[in-house]
Amino acid sequence: MDFIKDPHKIEEKSMEIIERKIRGFTFTPRQKPIVKRVVHATGDSSYAAMLAFSPQAVEAALSALLANEPIYCDVEMVRTGLSRLGLQQLGIKPVCLIHDLEIKKEAKKRGITRAMAAMEHAVRECPDGGIFVIGNAPTSLFHLLRAVDEGRAKPALVIGVPVGFVGAAEAKELLTAYSLPWITVRGEKGGSPVAAAIVNALVNLALESKEARA
Amino acid sequence: MDFIKDPHKIEEKSMEIIERKIRGFTFTPRQKPIVKRVVHATGDSSYAAMLAFSPQAVEAALSALLANEPIYCDVEMVRTGLSRLGLQQLGIKPVCLIHDLEIKKEAKKRGITRAMAAMEHAVRECPDGGIFVIGNAPTSLFHLLRAVDEGRAKPALVIGVPVGFVGAAEAKELLTAYSLPWITVRGEKGGSPVAAAIVNALVNLALESKEARA
Repeated sequence: MDFIKDPHKIEEKSMEIIERKIRGFTFTPRQKPIVKRVVHATGDSSYAAMLAFSPQAVEAALSALLANEPIYCDVEMVRTGLSRLGLQQLGIKPVCLIHDLEIKKEAKKRGITRAMAAMEHAVRECPDGGIFVIGNAPTSLFHLLRAVDEGRAKPALVIGVPVGFVGAAEAKELLTAYSLPWITVRGEKGGSPVAAAIVNALVNLALESKEARA
Repeated sequence: MDFIKDPHKIEEKSMEIIERKIRGFTFTPRQKPIVKRVVHATGDSSYAAMLAFSPQAVEAALSALLANEPIYCDVEMVRTGLSRLGLQQLGIKPVCLIHDLEIKKEAKKRGITRAMAAMEHAVRECPDGGIFVIGNAPTSLFHLLRAVDEGRAKPALVIGVPVGFVGAAEAKELLTAYSLPWITVRGEKGGSPVAAAIVNALVNLALESKEARA
């Protein structure tokens, strides 16, 4: 039972393997580490063919992170997956409202889902800017896009990677029609590790660019 | 922008679609809801071909859950993904030690990873029985199996679904050689949503069998 024990060595070796697996895809130098981190988190190199970025999405993301824009996550699993240390260095504390008692009460009172009530609250709190990360429910993404249509939200970045066979592919396809900065995964796959991997890769890039400037 | 808003309806429709997608695979009536929940959580029906169960794994799992065996999760993302309500009804509070201050100190002192220190602690706390859920690091699974070899652990169930290109497939292949009850996913894929989905499906089955008995 001989195995590599050092997590840094495992990650290094893993990234080498992934580098070979995604050869042939054309990503910009800043998109590539994001793609690699998603493949690393899922063990699934088919994500290289499904990840999609709006023009300048990564640049918009880095500006938003360096400007300490708030990060709203649709579910706790996304928030738990985010790099604490990296976000701390950027001075950002990611928010997830789904288990908030006030949100639960409001959802019950209005007969809507907690995911919807949480998204409405996030949008009220941050009508201009903000990084919205949706790793679970297509309804959260639909709800956010409706708020954009109605002028109640103007996200600095939407990471929209909900998962599943009902509505997820449609919600993500819809997102790609918007002119705001977005990152998504076409099709049915996605989920919280994908969402967290995208944010974590962006956080690394932001810290690198911060260092380079200093 | 017309979409299904009711999460129960979305899940129902999703499960119908998944039922069709996994047609042709032979699972026992109790394995099938587990497979469906994993496919639901990942949007990836290829899991139907990769999920593997030791003989009587589900029966062992239900006995363990109904006997309030402790649940140890390797990472917080797994624990966060578990059904709070279901586990509460079974009187089980899932544990994850990776961010525990004592574990951090011990890992640093001994020059081992936090994942290893956490697994050692779990095994010391629960040398006989316990449900061990590994959704992230192959090293945690290797470490647990070494403890089994040395007679320091005798899990009631191992859910071993670490993800990645370095060691994960090997660790899971090794698990399938053990005569203890296990559930795994062959190959490189896996991760915390897969681990959480398996536990949540088992919790549902346990609650159903508890109700049927009452």
